[in-house]
This record gives sequence, structure tokens and C-alpha cells, in this order.
Amino acid sequence: MTSPNVKIAIVGSSGYTGGELYRLLLNHRFATITAVTSEKSAGKPLTSLFPHLAGLTDLLCEPLDPETIARKADFIFLALPHVTAQEVAFRFHRLGKKVVDLSADYRLADPALYEKWYEYCHQYPDLLKQAVYGLPELHRDKIRKASLIANPGCYPTGAILGLAPLVKRAAIDLATIIVDSKSGVSGAGRNPSLAYHYPEVNEGLMAYKIGTHRHTPEIEQEVSALAGKMVTLSFTPHLVPMNRGILTTIYALLNAPADTGKVHALYREFYEREPFVRVLALGQLPNVRNVRGSNFCDIGVYADPRTNRAVAVTAIDNLVKGASGQAIQNMNLMLGYDEREGLDAAGLFP
Amino acid sequence: MTSPNVKIAIVGSSGYTGGELYRLLLNHRFATITAVTSEKSAGKPLTSLFPHLAGLTDLLCEPLDPETIARKADFIFLALPHVTAQEVAFRFHRLGKKVVDLSADYRLADPALYEKWYEYCHQYPDLLKQAVYGLPELHRDKIRKASLIANPGCYPTGAILGLAPLVKRAAIDLATIIVDSKSGVSGAGRNPSLAYHYPEVNEGLMAYKIGTHRHTPEIEQEVSALAGKMVTLSFTPHLVPMNRGILTTIYALLNAPADTGKVHALYREFYEREPFVRVLALGQLPNVRNVRGSNFCDIGVYADPRTNRAVAVTAIDNLVKGASGQAIQNMNLMLGYDEREGLDAAGLFP
Amino acid sequence: MTSPNVKIAIVGSSGYTGGELYRLLLNHRFATITAVTSEKSAGKPLTSLFPHLAGLTDLLCEPLDPETIARKADFIFLALPHVTAQEVAFRFHRLGKKVVDLSADYRLADPALYEKWYEYCHQYPDLLKQAVYGLPELHRDKIRKASLIANPGCYPTGAILGLAPLVKRAAIDLATIIVDSKSGVSGAGRNPSLAYHYPEVNEGLMAYKIGTHRHTPEIEQEVSALAGKMVTLSFTPHLVPMNRGILTTIYALLNAPADTGKVHALYREFYEREPFVRVLALGQLPNVRNVRGSNFCDIGVYADPRTNRAVAVTAIDNLVKGASGQAIQNMNLMLGYDEREGLDAAGLFP
Amino acid sequence: MTSPNVKIAIVGSSGYTGGELYRLLLNHRFATITAVTSEKSAGKPLTSLFPHLAGLTDLLCEPLDPETIARKADFIFLALPHVTAQEVAFRFHRLGKKVVDLSADYRLADPALYEKWYEYCHQYPDLLKQAVYGLPELHRDKIRKASLIANPGCYPTGAILGLAPLVKRAAIDLATIIVDSKSGVSGAGRNPSLAYHYPEVNEGLMAYKIGTHRHTPEIEQEVSALAGKMVTLSFTPHLVPMNRGILTTIYALLNAPADTGKVHALYREFYEREPFVRVLALGQLPNVRNVRGSNFCDIGVYADPRTNRAVAVTAIDNLVKGASGQAIQNMNLMLGYDEREGLDAAGLFP
Repeated sequence: MTSPNVKIAIVGSSGYTGGELYRLLLNHRFATITAVTSEKSAGKPLTSLFPHLAGLTDLLCEPLDPETIARKADFIFLALPHVTAQEVAFRFHRLGKKVVDLSADYRLADPALYEKWYEYCHQYPDLLKQAVYGLPELHRDKIRKASLIANPGCYPTGAILGLAPLVKRAAIDLATIIVDSKSGVSGAGRNPSLAYHYPEVNEGLMAYKIGTHRHTPEIEQEVSALAGKMVTLSFTPHLVPMNRGILTTIYALLNAPADTGKVHALYREFYEREPFVRVLALGQLPNVRNVRGSNFCDIGVYADPRTNRAVAVTAIDNLVKGASGQAIQNMNLMLGYDEREGLDAAGLFP
Repeated sequence: MTSPNVKIAIVGSSGYTGGELYRLLLNHRFATITAVTSEKSAGKPLTSLFPHLAGLTDLLCEPLDPETIARKADFIFLALPHVTAQEVAFRFHRLGKKVVDLSADYRLADPALYEKWYEYCHQYPDLLKQAVYGLPELHRDKIRKASLIANPGCYPTGAILGLAPLVKRAAIDLATIIVDSKSGVSGAGRNPSLAYHYPEVNEGLMAYKIGTHRHTPEIEQEVSALAGKMVTLSFTPHLVPMNRGILTTIYALLNAPADTGKVHALYREFYEREPFVRVLALGQLPNVRNVRGSNFCDIGVYADPRTNRAVAVTAIDNLVKGASGQAIQNMNLMLGYDEREGLDAAGLFP
Repeated sequence: MTSPNVKIAIVGSSGYTGGELYRLLLNHRFATITAVTSEKSAGKPLTSLFPHLAGLTDLLCEPLDPETIARKADFIFLALPHVTAQEVAFRFHRLGKKVVDLSADYRLADPALYEKWYEYCHQYPDLLKQAVYGLPELHRDKIRKASLIANPGCYPTGAILGLAPLVKRAAIDLATIIVDSKSGVSGAGRNPSLAYHYPEVNEGLMAYKIGTHRHTPEIEQEVSALAGKMVTLSFTPHLVPMNRGILTTIYALLNAPADTGKVHALYREFYEREPFVRVLALGQLPNVRNVRGSNFCDIGVYADPRTNRAVAVTAIDNLVKGASGQAIQNMNLMLGYDEREGLDAAGLFP
Repeated sequence: MTSPNVKIAIVGSSGYTGGELYRLLLNHRFATITAVTSEKSAGKPLTSLFPHLAGLTDLLCEPLDPETIARKADFIFLALPHVTAQEVAFRFHRLGKKVVDLSADYRLADPALYEKWYEYCHQYPDLLKQAVYGLPELHRDKIRKASLIANPGCYPTGAILGLAPLVKRAAIDLATIIVDSKSGVSGAGRNPSLAYHYPEVNEGLMAYKIGTHRHTPEIEQEVSALAGKMVTLSFTPHLVPMNRGILTTIYALLNAPADTGKVHALYREFYEREPFVRVLALGQLPNVRNVRGSNFCDIGVYADPRTNRAVAVTAIDNLVKGASGQAIQNMNLMLGYDEREGLDAAGLFP
């Protein structure tokens, strides 16, 4: 049985994830966006922020007043900065609305960990307990029953999906995990700064926040849960001159002699029924260009007999499977829609 | 009344327009692709050519045998090189199939003009007479009744849509038209060559084939028809380091004193009911990023009081409104579907 | 006779033209940079602004105090915003220093024109009279004797060099000139803003300020001088997703029947002795990639028999021939060095 | 004492490394290029291959005949494909010429290893014994006396320079080394193919040849020599949409408790006197944009207390320090010039 139509608000709609929610929800047969908020652009048409949506929407941005929004919408996507999202999520939750929070505020189950990495004390520890980490491939059943979803970070999505089969099947030495990720620039958001000024980024390439990026504890939380014990790993993000996409290269020592066929079979089996994970054929490797605009996570694996390491590579679109697409996938689960609803279009290539 | 479902063949599916037809037709509720052809990849899955379609199709490429294809499909898209398409279109037409030919073979109504610019004598002048130039904004009624559509070239689409209101309303001096176009690299096709080798194109920019590009007579044919007399114009294409998009900047002397408001109103009125032309608000100018992946043609205009010239700028995605999207728009008209069917998704930004 | 060594100050060194001056002057055998100024970065090493210069300079940025700078340096490059540069140029001039001003402040000989386009009344009309427009190909002799050079804008450099032979030789109808320019993003400067945020620019392309860009009167001033009468022309700038380079496509009606050979010969003859203008072989067209990092202006021409228009295309690096390289070329002339000193390195390809 | 001038031949000048040798040698005060060879372009001007060199050279390409070339030049750069270079190097060596071979043919000291990875039996094992691996930072003294230099691969240059301090000082567990490299597209050479066709690469990102890339044994050979025992490591190359640059991220378990200050000091001390290695200040990380066009290798390091791993990041321009610049650095050593001669220009930013 399909749920009836749903009225949706996008709270914090001026950034890239807000725009991407709108783009994707236009394809959703049962969703109607009834409100979009933006403090800076309140009163202006959404298309003033996103000219590519001209002709497809007449919505005006409005200021964020949860009570007003709650009268217009039943389901809330929060595309706000972390810290800000904490209270907003709380208020919508109290008003009985289902919420998918795209910020980091409800991702770390341990408030002490949140405080350590985000340098801010969590104000809603009780609500935090109810939040479910919205990675459907790992937590589908909990997501179905949740009223507040902490939508995973972009890097964690690629990293956890790449690690899960190896960790869950105890195929690797957990002390040897290295996650080397490369992201397009939209992952840094839409606020201009010198670091993302076109001529500074174009024809450039760098690592940043080595060992200190806030997505590290998020990856470790999920990997530890899969492993059944605490896992500490190395995570390095890189900035690549392209708009979209995260490629994640994962290294770990195998417990058994390297056999690419076996490792590949393990991935194939693990993701057998997943609608959005494509384990590529043996010998093939993913490319972010093949998931651009789509909710797929492509995975390729290799077991190196020389070093006995597994190398897994995952590719996602950071704005789709790494943010807005996954958020809609979560909504579909929460509301009983087909998980693929609104997300089954092909990506854009080239 | 909606026509029933239609079975479709994409003939010549290995290039970018073939892949784009597939991507877009996946969104079409009434279309089923039943055959794709590629000589080089015959027997291989379509996804070996287009990994981004993995999980969305199981079709195998087959060799091009019109009789075989005609048994599988009712509607044919030809995404073949010019000259090659001539005979193939003829054969499908003889087999009673409706055809949209994305090549240049049936665009120039005058076979002598074809021979002059394409250096090859047209072999099917009778069929050429029946072909309709598939620009819906100008020829919608004829397209509805046609069995063979010559789908416009990418540059001509942007140029003609930008010129049509000025020419049709006799607003400009026809002897003064200059069309300066800038295209992304996918317009050059998928065959590798040094000219399109990544490091040769990236961070480069050039004009090419000044005054001699084969799209010139195509633009002139349509503009002349609008004007009711022969028009000769200057056309210069440029190659820009980006994947998709054509921006066309058009100059012409105005017959009346420059008045941007009036020129803008003229465009608004001319395209009032067009589902895929967005005449931007006064003072706004188009950007190819806003039409990426969509079938829109965005238009901005300015009337310069200093020079008394009109300047019109159009933006299209060369693979969508400039090729595959327009081809589907034509199919929708030919088969009685809603013209927007399969083409109403938002573009991809960023 | 070569002048002795010269001590140089770069005033306003935090932007791209400041950094480029430094890069190029490192190759100059007779120049020593003795001071660099930046208000924001005063006290910090220049390499904190330009890490690519690490190991090549130990200079610290200092605040702009003309008297202090004047004690350290004999020759001043001003890489400041317009309006700001007015007074600074005046003060250095009064202190007896030779100055090349890279801003627009001393380019328009008519203060009324300056006020109209820059919406600010020129404060130093007397000094303005002494300033020489620093395009060596047109004003070499005056530059040699000047103490204040108004270094040309990036767009005007490409436009004027492309138009000069046609205009000077009275080969075209002056009422029909159209200048369509396409620029890389570094031309917009180093101040971050949404318009130049990487994901907004990448895979985008747009025209802007049609008919209203401030470089228009600058082009017209020089073209009018060449023509011996007032010329009004159309100028449209475009923003292209690349770091460096301006390609300018120029159209004008020829006075005589179109003959590419003759037009080409005219350009070859006009620029015969110019060290930095490369008139390409007949049939070849310029590409900005071939001038990247170098002071060359490449020019290709075509005379279209269909329309009787001349089409000239010029390519420059906006930061070199369009700014800092030309500034050094001017300095070389002012100080009696070989005009090519410091500017004879090949460009960077790919 | 400086050696006298030297006459140079670039053998195989049609690729990017050939063009880059030319560009850089133009800056070399004592070098004159007297011959360039290209089979395909024999008889044509070098500028037909490299229009950016127009106005800077009149050389014609000639076919490769070692005896003829040897009469014109004293020093030979081989920019040929591997296997082809073997015999050519041998012949020039027999003719008494000093040779820097940019191919892989003389890099692996063990001919069995060469045969295994390059699937071709080495034909000149005696000459192979005399060849010196041309990484000046490790083998400066041997290079000075060598007559045949095997110029390092682009990936190995960045990897070995990043690993050397840690390995030489026995600071890491040699069994835990992971090298994750990201390269611009010019590293793939100038032969067009679908894999490097602009729209396939742009906005894409992928890993390739995981664990099987031919640069792996080259890295291991040098690291093993530094360690004094056989080292096996993981190496993964990635293709990034940019023209130039390799960023290499290196991971290894530290033998002592993580202390970034100590690790940083170790690098600073190790490269103290190196003219082309810039160990960045504590806390800073390299970006390929800062070495574009220059011979620098920038290095940043971090010691992660959470995992006790060292993470070192190196940035080079693959065509300069990763190929042609290093080749000239080797020539300078072989001929007694200042090691920096011709290589002291700043890189190009932006």
C-alpha cells in the first residue's frame, strides 16, 4: 500500500543540497513541495536562487518559522548548517513532523563525541537518542520507523558503503583501514570564499584536514557498529576541480590470502538486493562521471596478492547519494513509498 | 487522446546523442526502447558503452539491419553520421516507420545546397521533399503530420530561436546579422582525436571554421523562410572547455530606435506559449549552466542605444534542445503525446 | 645603452596581476623588487598570498605609504582598484617616480568620459593629461618618454590589436564593428563572490554587461584615434570556465571585396616588427592555450566572401599581455631596456 | 667552473615532455637545441606541433637517425616510448653522447623485473648496468658521473621524495606503506583515445591499474634501496580532470608515537639543501597549483596521534619535476652547470 501524497518543506533552500532536493522531488509522483525557506531571500522567488528551476516552480522563499511551515507541510527536510539544525529539528519534531536533517547534528549518537568534534555541546540529547542514521543499506528497518533521520555526510556515505562488506564479513584487519577520498567542489557548499574562488580551485588539487575532518568519527561510528568493536581509521579528504562527485579509495589488510574473485563475490552478495548500489563487474572500476546526478553508489574492488590488501573504490554524487538523493530515499522508507520513487532517473553523462 | 505506447529503436547508439536519447526516454511514460544498434559494439550490452546506464537497461547492441529493427520498433531515431543516414532513413521510411534523423542529411531542402556544403550528392531527393525541419517553435503543425523529421543542428537551434522574433517581426536590418556561438566539447562527438584530447582543449578557447561551418546554410534557410527573402549572415563557432552547452550571441541593427523594453516584449509575446523557451526577465542574461541536461532554450535580449543594435543571447544544452531532447519533442508531436512528455525534468545545477 | 638596474615596488600585490608582475619580473635581469604592499597582509610574507613563489622571495608585504615606498624603489607598478589608484599614482608621480598604473584611472583621456563610465569625478585632470595609454604597438614613442603609463585593460588590448590594422588602413566600414570577447575567470580578480564561486562558473558560460562594460569607451578611444574620427562599436564580454585567456572575435564590413590573402597581408605588414604580435599563417586561427603565460598576442584573420565581412580573432593571456606583461613591456620602453627583457619565455602548454 | 655551451637534441619531440623540454631549455643560458626529431612530422616546423613556441624557434623536425643527430648535438634527451628507447639510447651511448632517457627502459636495474612488468626482454643489459636512476635528491653524485640517466617516472618522483625521509631514517613500519596518487591528464601522453577524450575526462574521476601500474616496481626499487631491504607497497594511481600535476598521499605506521613536529623536522633536515624540494611550514599542505610549470616538489606532513600513522603529501608538476624539468636538472649535474640553471622560474598561478 502506498502512502497518500505528501506535502514537503525544504528548510534552508539556498544551498546546493536545497536546490538538489527540489530538482529530485520534481520527479517524485507523490511529493509536493509546499514551502521553501531562506532567510536571506525571504520574499523572493526560489528561481532567483536557482535560475535552472525557472518555469518549474513559482514558490517564494519564506523566513523560517517552524509553526508557519508546519501548517503547510507534513514532511521536513533540513538543509541548514550544523548547530543551527539542532533546535530546528527539535521544534519540527515537537510539532509532530517527520524530519530528515541533512546536517551533522544528529549523526553522532554519543553527544560527547559530537561536542569533541564540533566544539559545541549538544542541546537535545534526548532527541539525539531517537534519531536514526539514515544509511538505508545498513539501517533500513529502523529508518522505516523513525521520525528523525540524521542524513549521512557525503564522505561517510562513500566510505561506509565501501567498507561495510569487508567489515561485516570480518574479512579485514580492522587496525589497517585507510580511507582516501576525493571530492568535487559543491561538497564545500555555496558560500563564496577564496578557497573556492574559481581560479584558485581550477587546475589545483590538494588534501586538507588530514586526520581531523569531522566526518572521521561518523565513519568510525558506523564501521565500529558493523565490526562489533571500536575501530579507529585514517581518513583524508581531497579537493578536486570538478562540480560533483566523491571517489573514495579504501585500503585494508585482508585476513585471508588475496583473492579478487572472492572479495568481489562478497560485495555482490552483500549488496545483492540494493537498488542504489552497483557492484561493478570484476576488473572494472568506478568513475564519478557515471553517477553524476543519480543516487547510485558504484563500487569496484581489487585484492592485491603482492601486499594482501583489499582495495575498494566507491563513487557517488555528493549532492545525491551523498546528500539530497539519500534524504529522499530515507523519506520514501519513512512514508512507505517505493524506495526508488523520484530517484530512478539516469545520471547525466557526459 | 494519448497515443498508445510506442516501441523505439535508437540507430547508432554509441555516440553522445544516442546515450542522451536513452537517458531522456527512460523518463518517458509511453516509450519503450526495444532496440539499439552499434556496429562496433554489436553483441555487447549498451552499458559497456554507457556505464552510467548500468542497472537501468539490459539491452544488447545489435548491428544495423533495418528489416530486423523494423520488426522490433515502430519509431526510429537515427543518430548516425551524415551521408550514412541518408539511405538508412530512406529504408526505414519505406518500411513505414516514422523517423527522426538527427544527422544533417534531410535538413537542407535544396539538394544543391546540400551538395555544395556537404560535398556529396543527395541520393534521395524525393524523400528530402517530404522531410520536415524539426524545430517545433517554427514548424509545429507540419511536424505533427510528418513521417520524417530532420532534427535541427545544435548551433542552428540556438541561432534560429534567437533570431526568429526579430526576423519574423521585421525588427532588424537583415543584412547586418552576426551569429557568434560558443559550444561545449560534446558537440564535437565521441570520436577521439588530438583536437579534442583533454589537455589540448582544457584551458583553451578558439574559433574554428569561420564563415564555412556547415550549420551556416541551415541557419540561413530558416531565417530566410521567416524573412520571406534570402538572408546571408555571418556565423562563427567557438570551442569552449566544458562538456555541454551552446551560448549564442546575436547582433543585428534595429530598424527602430533601440528600446530594450520593446524588444523584450516582442520576444515574450513570440514565445508566450512555448513550453521550452524561457525568455528571461528584463535585464537578465542566460547561462548554459541553467539549461544543462534540460530541453530549455533560455533567451536574454538587449537593445543598445549607443549602436542601435539588438543583442540576443540564447543558451541551450547542445545534447538536449540541440539534439536528443528536441528529437523527443518532435516524436511527441508526431505521435500525439504531450509535447513535454519525458522532457519536464529540471536541469542539473551545479 | 642599457639602463642600470632598477628597484621596483609592486603596490597592491595581493591580486592576480600583482602576483603575475612578481612572477615575470623574476625573469628580468635588471629588475629587483624591493617592496610589495598589501594592506590586509601587511607584515606577512608575500608567499602567504602566493605559495607558488615560496623559495623565490623573502619579501614581506607592507602597508602602502608612498613616501616609504619611494625611498625603496624607483619604479612603481600600481595594481590597485580604480578610483584608489588615482591619488596613489599622483603621489608617486609627485615624488618623481615613474609609474605604470594597471587600473583604469588614467586610460580615458577625457575626464568627462571617465566620470560617465566610472561614476566618479576624476580628481587629477592635470596628471591625466600627461598619462600615456600604454599599448606599445600603437604608442611606443610616447611611452618611451612618459612618466605615467595607463596600462590598457585586458579586453581593450585584444580588441584594439585586432582592429588596428583594419582601421588604420581604412579597410572597413567603421559603423559596422562588433567585438565579441570571451575571458577566463582570473580577469574578474581575486575577490571571492558567488558569481565566481567554482561550481557556479565551472561548466557555465554567459555574456554579461552587454553594451555597458567599462572597457567599451577605452576601445572606442583608441579605435577613434586610429580612424581619425569618432567610432562607436558593440562590445560584449563573456565569462568562460578557464583560468586565463581572452579570445576576441571581431566583425566588420570590408570596404573592398573580401580577399583573405590581402587582409592577411595587411596584418602581417602592420605587425611586421612587433616582438609580441604573432600574425598566424593564412588559414590558422589562434587559441588562448598557445599564449598562456606569455606576452604574445596571436591573431588570425578571415575575409568572408559571402558576407564581405572581415573576421579577426585575437588571443592573449589576460594576466600577461592583458595586464602585467604589458606593464613590464611598458617599463622596458620607459627605462630603455630591450622591450622583450623578462618577457621572452615560452608560454605553458598544455 | 662552468662547462661551455652545449648543443642538445630532443629525440621524440612531438609529445608533451618533448615540448616541455623545449620550453624549459629556452630559459637555459648555456643550452642550444640543435635538433628535434619526430617521425610523423619530419620536415615540418616544430611549431606545427607546438604553436605556443611560434616566434621562439625555427627548427624543423627531422627523422630519427642517431648518426645524423650525433653530428649536430652533444647531449641527447630521449622522449620516446619505452621499448623504442632501449636501442636508441644504446646507439647514442655508443656514439659517445650523454643521454637522459625519459622512458622507463633503463629505470629498473633488474632486467628480470623489467621483463615482468613491461612484458619485453631487455636487449641491452650491459648498458642497463651503467644507467643511473636520475633522482638528484638521492643519487646526485652518481648522476654527475653518469653518461646514461634513466629519468624517473612522474608518479615515482612524487612517491619516492615523499617516502625517502621516513624510510631512510627508519621512522616507519615498511610493511604498511600505501601510496595514493592523483594525476592530471597530460601524464597520459598526447595520443588521443576515448579514455582521454575531453568529455569523458572532464567532470570525471577514477582510479586505474590498482596494484598493477608499472611505476610500482620503480617506487619499490628506490624505497628498498633506502631501507636496505626489500619493500613491497600499495600504489594506486587516479586520473583527475586537470592538465598538469600529481598529488601523492602517502600513509605508513610510525615506529614512534606520532609527533608531527618531529616528523616535520625530519623532512626539513633531510631536504635542507635541496634546491627543488620545499618542505612546507608545519600545518600547511601542498597543492599542485603551486608547482604548475615549475620544478619544485612541495611536501606537507602530518603525524596522526589517533592512528599513529604518518601522512605525507607531495605535489609536483608531472611534466616538470616529473619529467622534463628533472631531466634538465640531471643534465645540469652531468655537465657541471648550476643545478638550477634554466629551472629557476616561478610556476604559473593561477
